[in-house]
Order: sequence, then C-alpha cells, then structure tokens
Amino acid sequence: MEKKAVILLSGGLDSATCLALARRRGFAAYALSFDYGQRHRCELEAAHRVAVALGAVEHRIFRLNLDQWGGSALTDRSLDVPVDEAAEGCDVIPITYVPARNLVFLSLAAAWGEVLGAHDIFIGVNSVDYSGYPDCRPEFISAFQSAVDMGTRAADEKWHWRVHTPLQQLGKKEIIELGVSAGVDYSLTVSCYDPDETGAACGHCASCQLRRAGFAAAGVPDPTRYRVG
Amino acid sequence: MEKKAVILLSGGLDSATCLALARRRGFAAYALSFDYGQRHRCELEAAHRVAVALGAVEHRIFRLNLDQWGGSALTDRSLDVPVDEAAEGCDVIPITYVPARNLVFLSLAAAWGEVLGAHDIFIGVNSVDYSGYPDCRPEFISAFQSAVDMGTRAADEKWHWRVHTPLQQLGKKEIIELGVSAGVDYSLTVSCYDPDETGAACGHCASCQLRRAGFAAAGVPDPTRYRVG
Repeated sequence: MEKKAVILLSGGLDSATCLALARRRGFAAYALSFDYGQRHRCELEAAHRVAVALGAVEHRIFRLNLDQWGGSALTDRSLDVPVDEAAEGCDVIPITYVPARNLVFLSLAAAWGEVLGAHDIFIGVNSVDYSGYPDCRPEFISAFQSAVDMGTRAADEKWHWRVHTPLQQLGKKEIIELGVSAGVDYSLTVSCYDPDETGAACGHCASCQLRRAGFAAAGVPDPTRYRVG
Repeated sequence: MEKKAVILLSGGLDSATCLALARRRGFAAYALSFDYGQRHRCELEAAHRVAVALGAVEHRIFRLNLDQWGGSALTDRSLDVPVDEAAEGCDVIPITYVPARNLVFLSLAAAWGEVLGAHDIFIGVNSVDYSGYPDCRPEFISAFQSAVDMGTRAADEKWHWRVHTPLQQLGKKEIIELGVSAGVDYSLTVSCYDPDETGAACGHCASCQLRRAGFAAAGVPDPTRYRVG
C-alpha cells in the first residue's frame, strides 16, 4: 500500500511543486487547502485544479475563519496589501504575515493525517524568499515536529511525524526547475497578492516579481496570465 | 495596562477554573471556545455563561470543522461514546481523544493572542485524570511552547510565550477547591459526555464520575444538574 502524505496546497507555485514532489516520492497525496478569509478565491480554485492535475487522492478545503481577528494585510480588509513590498528577502516581518498561520495549518494537517494514518506532511516553506516570516524557518519546522510527535498518537505508538520541506533552501529558479521536471503545469497556479476576479496576476506585487524573475532565471517561458494595464 | 491572556474555555469544570485563575493573577481574559462539531451544543452555552460570570473581556466561539474528518467518538457520529470508560487515568488512548485537538486549539489561541498582543495562554490540561491523552501531557505543552516561540513574532521580538497549565498536576478535588476559592460557580459548567438537550448530566459517564467524586472529596455540595432516570 502506498504511504499517505498530507500536502498543504495553497494554489501557488511553491505548494504545487511540493505536491508534485510528494507524488514523485511515491506518496498517496491528500491535499489540504484553507479557506481562511484570504482575499482571493481564485487561489482555492487554482489549488483544486493543481490537486486534480497532479493526481491527489483527495482535496479538502477547510474553512477557517482567521479573518475574524484580522492582523494581516492578507485577511484584514482594513489593511492595504503593499504592492511594492521589497521582493528580496527582508529582515522585518512583512505586513502580509498572517499570525501563526503555518502553525495552525500544520496542526490541522496533523489532525487530518492522524485520522488518515499518514505520518508525513509536505509544506512549501522557503527561507530564501520568505526569510521575514518566522513560520517559514527551519527552526520552527523542527520545533513543530517535536510538538506534534508529543501531542498525537505518535508518542504512544512509537513513530515520528516527518514534516517535509523540500523547498526550504531553494530559490525560485531552482523550485521552478524542480517542478517542471516533476510535471507541474504552472499555468494552473496563482501567486499574485492582487489578482483580478478571473485570477489574472497584477505583475507588480512582490510575489509576481519573484515569480517572474524565477521563470526568467530558469529559462522557462512564464505561463502566468497577467492582466492588461 | 492589564496584561492580556487567551484562555481556552470549553464550558467544563477544568477550563472554568483556569479562567478564574487567570483573572485572579490579574490578566485581562480573552476566552476562546471552539465549535468543532462536538455533539453537545450546551457546552458552548456553558462556556459563554462562565466567560460572562468571570468577567472575560471577550468570548469568541471559533467554528472549526474537525467533525469533517471524524476519528473521535466526540465528533464522529458513527462512533458511540463509551459511557462506562474507566474513570481513572488509563494507559491507552481513549476513543474520546480528538486527533491533535489541543495542538490545533493552542495554535489558534496563539494566532489570536498574537493579534491581541497577548503572550500568555491558559489551558486546563491535566495529567492526573487524562494521562491517556497525549496532548494533555507536560512534554507536549513544553514542546508546543518552543514551536510557538519559533513560529510567531516572539522569535523576532525577543519575548516568550507562556502556556499556563495551572491544573497539570492536580486531582479533581484540588481543582474544585482552587476554583471555589477563586470564585467559580460550577453550576454554570457542563462536563458530561452525554448531556440531554437542556444540559442535564447523565451521571454515569467517565466525566460525570470524575466530577462527582471530586465534589465529594472536596466536601463541596455538587451543583451539577443530573437528569432523572
């Protein structure tokens, strides 16, 4: 029987790559997305297209009302998403940081994984481009792994969770190269912080800049649909 | 200004005691309950009564669809809650264990806490009566504390989360004595695994047995409303 893994899937480039890598490593993939009040519904539609295209066994969209307490430009409608936030890694926590987001997402992945009998979780965190987000750093992932080992059946049944972060040390160029080799169709993904209702990207925000530069550096034609103007 | 704390509040005896202790220690209390598909809506009503009675600044009920993946007798309607599960601490994981529940709850408490500017979380875990639940043990709480320190602003802003577990080593008798001294009105709380729709307790389940024995041992009249028959 194939081993099962839960893959956190946002609809963006990184998590699509993670899903492809989990499949290539032979895991039966259970994709998990969150409807957490992010401004862009098209991300969830993208996540679903990616899950289907890459042969996930199941794709769940978990409704999680993180927008109810605000605190981030991605969920709080009273804050503007900065479109020209520096695209390079930054030392301060960006306003697009959602408090404790990856902690919450990983905890729910573990909850589902425990029910499924999965011991593996894939998450597309990255320390190169997102060094400003505390919950994308390897120190956090490793501390989380200890916590989930202690707080679930793993402790009693003498096995260990493994949180896979295959993109941790890669730049966008390397991520795209890896994803293309693993069969990702990046035209299905949405990375933009400010897409229009059809999912077309703005081309200007930090996320678009990173993504565009990644395709250019990898020598891969950029399949992103940008909006006009 | 009062320091803020997030208190996980279930509507039961233990978490009501935690809230009273947080107030006595001078914290402005932000009570957080989860509507996670537990069978008993009366628990959430009890939580609200307790939050009001003990002067919480705010009480949030966070909708969390843990019932969607089942895996516990408390959320999965295809499993029966065992009414005569041994009331004493047990060595196997009980069927009432909800996978990764406290990990998920603490993560969301931290998410809200980060938005509020709270660095303190209170949770009524207990190793005496609930030794069978991996997510009630001190090893888990301490591992969680490291994870949340790493995965939030705490890492960058050089402060530490503190997860308070004031009931960790107490039996029900001691918990009740402490709660009475801190002003808890236990008639507002619901502990039963199988209450009727009015919140009246069955008197027979593991949780009722523990609670009843606790009042008897503490020499406090049991204010629980039991159903007839």
